[in-house]
Amino acid sequence: MSLLSVIELLAVIATAVYGILLAVRKEMDVVGLFTVSFGGGTLRDLFLDRQPLFWIAHPHLPLVVLVLAILGSVLPRVLNKLERFLLLPDALGMGLFTVAGTQYALDAGSPWFICALMGAITGTFGGVIGDMLCNDIPSLFRPAPLNATCSFAGAGVYVLLSQLQLPGLTAAIIGVVVVFVFRLVAVRWNLQLPAVRLPDAD
Amino acid sequence: MSLLSVIELLAVIATAVYGILLAVRKEMDVVGLFTVSFGGGTLRDLFLDRQPLFWIAHPHLPLVVLVLAILGSVLPRVLNKLERFLLLPDALGMGLFTVAGTQYALDAGSPWFICALMGAITGTFGGVIGDMLCNDIPSLFRPAPLNATCSFAGAGVYVLLSQLQLPGLTAAIIGVVVVFVFRLVAVRWNLQLPAVRLPDAD
Amino acid sequence: MSLLSVIELLAVIATAVYGILLAVRKEMDVVGLFTVSFGGGTLRDLFLDRQPLFWIAHPHLPLVVLVLAILGSVLPRVLNKLERFLLLPDALGMGLFTVAGTQYALDAGSPWFICALMGAITGTFGGVIGDMLCNDIPSLFRPAPLNATCSFAGAGVYVLLSQLQLPGLTAAIIGVVVVFVFRLVAVRWNLQLPAVRLPDAD
Repeated sequence: MSLLSVIELLAVIATAVYGILLAVRKEMDVVGLFTVSFGGGTLRDLFLDRQPLFWIAHPHLPLVVLVLAILGSVLPRVLNKLERFLLLPDALGMGLFTVAGTQYALDAGSPWFICALMGAITGTFGGVIGDMLCNDIPSLFRPAPLNATCSFAGAGVYVLLSQLQLPGLTAAIIGVVVVFVFRLVAVRWNLQLPAVRLPDAD
Repeated sequence: MSLLSVIELLAVIATAVYGILLAVRKEMDVVGLFTVSFGGGTLRDLFLDRQPLFWIAHPHLPLVVLVLAILGSVLPRVLNKLERFLLLPDALGMGLFTVAGTQYALDAGSPWFICALMGAITGTFGGVIGDMLCNDIPSLFRPAPLNATCSFAGAGVYVLLSQLQLPGLTAAIIGVVVVFVFRLVAVRWNLQLPAVRLPDAD
Repeated sequence: MSLLSVIELLAVIATAVYGILLAVRKEMDVVGLFTVSFGGGTLRDLFLDRQPLFWIAHPHLPLVVLVLAILGSVLPRVLNKLERFLLLPDALGMGLFTVAGTQYALDAGSPWFICALMGAITGTFGGVIGDMLCNDIPSLFRPAPLNATCSFAGAGVYVLLSQLQLPGLTAAIIGVVVVFVFRLVAVRWNLQLPAVRLPDAD
């Protein structure tokens, strides 16, 4: 099992846990859960023309999500206790998917800017689609907690470390940690991006 | 004309009738109608790397939808009378698209779980996208009337019957009927899935 | 640089300016801006199986959008003054993307109806996705200002002129102007399509 497969498996598990905890709040069905878990990676595969899609090539991934969903539905007390930690699997899944997406784009020989963008798409669009399905304003698209910026920054760091020939595992861990910590900090202190904001303050 | 082509034509007609009746309520434009009619099948074709897309390969399908839309706009009284039966073309279109989507995935040699998932995607995502466009909470993603579950169950039955070497027409009819009846029953008695629900009741 | 590349560059610039002015109102992040600028063309490329996607094949396009976004964020006073002209870059971007999308479909040898439909998808879906992300009712899908109809009409005219062997530049300019003027007229006088409307008035 390659490093990339392990990262992707962990990313799917983290995102599914996030999706299940979110479903507790939002009354999502299993299909919503699949969309949150696989949406970002599916877009990346379509954009990079990678066929078959990662969850068709590795059908154990949707099965893992299904098993987690069944576990979640029979253990509601556990879910209720874990719900306050919603942000942790979200940030971790984002970090893992960002690194996996960036690596796929590097493998496809894309220029670095596209690699980082593809990492950000993979890391964030599952959540965006989930938000859209839940009819919230997608938080990614508002300047506040700067979802996409965290993912994009981690992807950029990972591209840089890969160019510097760091060992894959080291680069991956650093990339995931950058996204994870940046995301937690952004949510905690409600960081905002200066770009494309309301110019009322001028 | 193959069995699959006939099923797909009927599916497009049923979904377009549903879309036109929905448009009466929701003020959708013709493009919204196309999205409801072709959204699920387009996603399936993209996911299975089937090119050209089914409505590009069979351009009579969008023309059929266009003709139905024009008929609908010149016969508003008929629409008003039919609107109460909104659920019937919805359930029928879902059944037909589910069987068609599952068969395409079987043709592509996908494992059975993926085939059933692809059937559910084909059967339901047109409606999901339509709901999103109409800015409703997508009913597929809420535990109530269990849209995706009906489609997934019918797809599973169809995969099983195909493995048992039943004649294609028989398997297709049974698959469509399972989705259709399950869907009507689920809406009538407001059936709910135990999985991933609000754990308030514990 | 081919005529098509120039049209596409201008389309991306016009749509990005629209997206930035929209972002002033809607608090979109840079990723929302990318989605508005590249959504329609990405769908077209996926639907026509054109790989790599146009913004991966021409990575200067996302860089142009990024530079415009940075300029917009440091010049908020300019944005505030330009905001009332929101409709102009919107209509212009729609016209340019419509012609580009139609030409790609003609190059792919699609039948004329599909070419015009693909032009309308390319011209309008960026805005639709942007509207969905901003949680508005997508204006494309309501009978009023008939977004998709303007785009579809211009695409049809462009297909016709191309069949008549008009020089590419002439056909392109006429196609863009048809979409642009039709769009401005439709918004100004709030034109409505008779097809698929509320039949209350009968």
